Amino acid sequence: MAKAGVDAFLVPRSDAHMGEYVSPRDERLAWLTGFTGSAGFAAILQGEAGVFVDGRYTLQVREQVDLAHFTPVGWPKTTAADWLADRLEDGQFLAIDPWLHTSAEVEKLRDRLEPRGVTLRSGENLVDAIWDDQPEPALGKAHSQPDDLAGESSASKRHRLGKTLAEAEQSAAVLTLPDSISWLLNIRGTDIPRNPVVQAFAVLHTSGVVDLYVDSRKLAEVTLDDDVTVHDPADFVPSLAALAGPVRVDRSTAPYALKELLEGAGIEVAWGADPCILPKARKNPVEIASTREAHLRDAAAMVEFLTWLEREAPDGGLTEIEVVKALEGFRRATNALQDISFDTISGAGAHGAIVHYRVTEETNAPVEPGTLLLVDSGGQYVDGTTDITRTIAIGPPGVDEKRAFTRVLQGMIAISRARWPKGLAGRDLDALARAPLWMDGRDYDHGTGHGVGVFLNVHEGPQRLARISEVPLEPGMILSNEPGYYKEGAFGIRIENLIVVEHAPELPGGDDREQLCFTTLTWVPIDRRLIDVTLLSGEERAWLDAYHAEIPRLIGARLSDAAQAWVKDACQPI
Amino acid sequence: MAKAGVDAFLVPRSDAHMGEYVSPRDERLAWLTGFTGSAGFAAILQGEAGVFVDGRYTLQVREQVDLAHFTPVGWPKTTAADWLADRLEDGQFLAIDPWLHTSAEVEKLRDRLEPRGVTLRSGENLVDAIWDDQPEPALGKAHSQPDDLAGESSASKRHRLGKTLAEAEQSAAVLTLPDSISWLLNIRGTDIPRNPVVQAFAVLHTSGVVDLYVDSRKLAEVTLDDDVTVHDPADFVPSLAALAGPVRVDRSTAPYALKELLEGAGIEVAWGADPCILPKARKNPVEIASTREAHLRDAAAMVEFLTWLEREAPDGGLTEIEVVKALEGFRRATNALQDISFDTISGAGAHGAIVHYRVTEETNAPVEPGTLLLVDSGGQYVDGTTDITRTIAIGPPGVDEKRAFTRVLQGMIAISRARWPKGLAGRDLDALARAPLWMDGRDYDHGTGHGVGVFLNVHEGPQRLARISEVPLEPGMILSNEPGYYKEGAFGIRIENLIVVEHAPELPGGDDREQLCFTTLTWVPIDRRLIDVTLLSGEERAWLDAYHAEIPRLIGARLSDAAQAWVKDACQPI
Repeated sequence: MAKAGVDAFLVPRSDAHMGEYVSPRDERLAWLTGFTGSAGFAAILQGEAGVFVDGRYTLQVREQVDLAHFTPVGWPKTTAADWLADRLEDGQFLAIDPWLHTSAEVEKLRDRLEPRGVTLRSGENLVDAIWDDQPEPALGKAHSQPDDLAGESSASKRHRLGKTLAEAEQSAAVLTLPDSISWLLNIRGTDIPRNPVVQAFAVLHTSGVVDLYVDSRKLAEVTLDDDVTVHDPADFVPSLAALAGPVRVDRSTAPYALKELLEGAGIEVAWGADPCILPKARKNPVEIASTREAHLRDAAAMVEFLTWLEREAPDGGLTEIEVVKALEGFRRATNALQDISFDTISGAGAHGAIVHYRVTEETNAPVEPGTLLLVDSGGQYVDGTTDITRTIAIGPPGVDEKRAFTRVLQGMIAISRARWPKGLAGRDLDALARAPLWMDGRDYDHGTGHGVGVFLNVHEGPQRLARISEVPLEPGMILSNEPGYYKEGAFGIRIENLIVVEHAPELPGGDDREQLCFTTLTWVPIDRRLIDVTLLSGEERAWLDAYHAEIPRLIGARLSDAAQAWVKDACQPI
Repeated sequence: MAKAGVDAFLVPRSDAHMGEYVSPRDERLAWLTGFTGSAGFAAILQGEAGVFVDGRYTLQVREQVDLAHFTPVGWPKTTAADWLADRLEDGQFLAIDPWLHTSAEVEKLRDRLEPRGVTLRSGENLVDAIWDDQPEPALGKAHSQPDDLAGESSASKRHRLGKTLAEAEQSAAVLTLPDSISWLLNIRGTDIPRNPVVQAFAVLHTSGVVDLYVDSRKLAEVTLDDDVTVHDPADFVPSLAALAGPVRVDRSTAPYALKELLEGAGIEVAWGADPCILPKARKNPVEIASTREAHLRDAAAMVEFLTWLEREAPDGGLTEIEVVKALEGFRRATNALQDISFDTISGAGAHGAIVHYRVTEETNAPVEPGTLLLVDSGGQYVDGTTDITRTIAIGPPGVDEKRAFTRVLQGMIAISRARWPKGLAGRDLDALARAPLWMDGRDYDHGTGHGVGVFLNVHEGPQRLARISEVPLEPGMILSNEPGYYKEGAFGIRIENLIVVEHAPELPGGDDREQLCFTTLTWVPIDRRLIDVTLLSGEERAWLDAYHAEIPRLIGARLSDAAQAWVKDACQPI
């Protein structure tokens, strides 16, 4: 830092693709500080370093970092900008790597620090400069996603999106999100865990032609058509200067470096959403049909797991890690699992109340009779991505657990059953999921649902069921429906199905305005032992019984004898 | 127009105070075109004139204007800006009276027309220039609102708000909304019908001193303290030039003339909300207690009316106008009515489906057995403003009417019962009122509720229960709760109570986050003959029975013998 003439440096846990998972090369935060959580960043001064983590990592960070050199800071209560503003003086310099921050982030930092006389300096990564054995960039093998699963050829997608650029009077769009590029080119990858995407950069031209910047060794098994030209990643930066403006760049997802490079070359930047995001979110009928099949396969694995759990758990002796391993084993036994879709959450008892709990050897707790077990997991299959949470009573549950579970279930059913006039966003429906809990003076501190891809990221924008989501729901969008309730130190409850937005069937006497509704993709029993039937309305009971009645019919033939017997019992009317 | 050198002129139905009702002097639109609806405007060209009205006035405008000279235009489908853009040419001039348009409106017009070479010219009112017998400004007598009804002295309000200006580093705020000024100074007026406000302008200084610009003849019976100086209205404009900036002006409610005058005098305009709006919306405990009393008085009048209606209606022969007159008579019989709070809606049969229906001699329809009667009305009392809608079955109702009424009632009960974490806005709760109708493929094309004043305007911002409302609900805010359903050509249903936001009582086992809830102000029976009990949940039935059980207890002593007998029967459990 002294050599570079800077007083502070930011080390985010991110890469140039702003993904939820990063490759080993981009684990700078873990290398520097020892902190391995899935979110966080460090602000390094010459004599002090803050490691910023949110509430879920407060304990973990203290165990992992050397407290003599690193100070844990509670984020977002304290932002990097505020923390630095208190410590940096007029005339000092803050360095950032412009590939690891979006333009939106950089502007926020600048707005806070420049009035105090602190200058942002965008330059080389100071961690990379001293990280001698930094791993090479990921070289995961990619493969083609066949058109009969994608439902639309890459050429069709590229021409369709090229036209939208032309209509916006833009010459090209720079794509930096691996799932956008993977969707657009109908390819999938193995560069990073959990997200089956290819890490690359691309430029989409109005003609539908794509320049793809990626290590060609990853593409050995991929066929791309003639309008997609593969370039060495090293050519990406020089090629930007050759573009004619205006070039669309996504302010909230693209690295700040793009703005610097394009504007430095005199090319107009047109801020706008990554053009793939909405088209990717609106799944086509082929994708929906294939994801249905993936969900039935996954449901059968889940039912085998629940059958096993019911046999093994009541005697005690199981641990959270054994649960994780068993569940992944049942998914692997389908012979179709590409990867799990995120790190499984297996929270026994009080661990269930930690929303993003990930078990480690240190925290591994026994699954004890008389408690609840919360299991949130999913699989990546070539035909779809799943995400399901079930909360299971290990032995007879308590009264409070049953009441809370039933309230969560009522919210989950309200979303499952909802119909609404076309045009509404997740924000407009979120209250339906929470109202039953609100009536008990309770709530949960997370969104009701997130978008989900088809053999792509399990967290996918822009659609959400959440108070912060203004994006209108559209037919074909897949979302999770996962209300919960968390009683700190006691138990956690979450019930999660995936659902897809569809046109609602017309009803006799209904208005002539168009309505949308959800249909369910996930078919796994909900633990009836946890339901206080007296709290349910007739319509809620009818929904639940109808849901359960479908399950043996849909997945029975895929099950072992033991699981067939178990599911038959678990799906009885309440 | 030729003399003034302008090619077009806009004639809105508004005054400088942007109110819902205007005084006769400001009825320029009616004088010029003959159209007397409560909303609309005209765009006058030298050879053509468009009269812009929304869907509810499509028929009325054709009956009232001379179609040889005036062309009705459907608004908001066609905006004034679009209509004018199609007709005006490069180099032409559009004239506006800057006192009759907000800055927000003028900017919208300018954004659309200036790129086409049309210049906006702000100047004298061309209607006033030719309207020889234009009425004088309203001279309605004002009176003081005593502190024991207002709950806070004007001095206290003025100092409190002056401080918020100082904190925002503003020297003063120009107030143009009559209800803001009336609330701030604890005065009420009679300048315009329905809204008991004083038309005036005022400047609030950080010291809490107010300069009030109003015809002093209106204030003969009003006592103002020494820190409020009354000036001739003619002094308002010259006095603006003497202010020191920055001066707060409300972009969405203040006339554009203020911006011109202040900026013309070199004074900085600080756009910001009228500082009275939020404090006025948060009613204090004295206002809530007094409005409760007003609602009980009004409920007794409503019950006398419903008793009369049940006696008179079944034989046929009643008309919509007779209903309006009878209801106003029962309110007048309280000897406390200052005015009705808006023009009563009395819609029989298919007229009930016209959301803003106002009966005229021409439309006056009989109230026929076998139909529904929708009555939406309210009263202004010195201690409160009421607004209530009841839909009454005249003879046995049909199956579709009962199902729709029950769905509307379920939505209305959902809002009445709701609890929610502090911080949510009307938008976040609106779905609760609509979900029961949505499930039948139905909806309604208006908000679920609007803010209501205390002996002030029956439509008061900023709080609303509506998808467009982002204003967090706060304790003390009064709102209407009025879902509805309208079957064109057949029947209309609306059920409306007023409710007030309160801190929700803590519940055993509840989270420690703060919750809010509504409590009901309106206590008038809901027609049980229109309820399909099989559709209601146990909780909905319990709410309704408890609501009805309270009514005789709360208002029984105020009723005639006949009304006592009627209410006892009308409030039986369902």
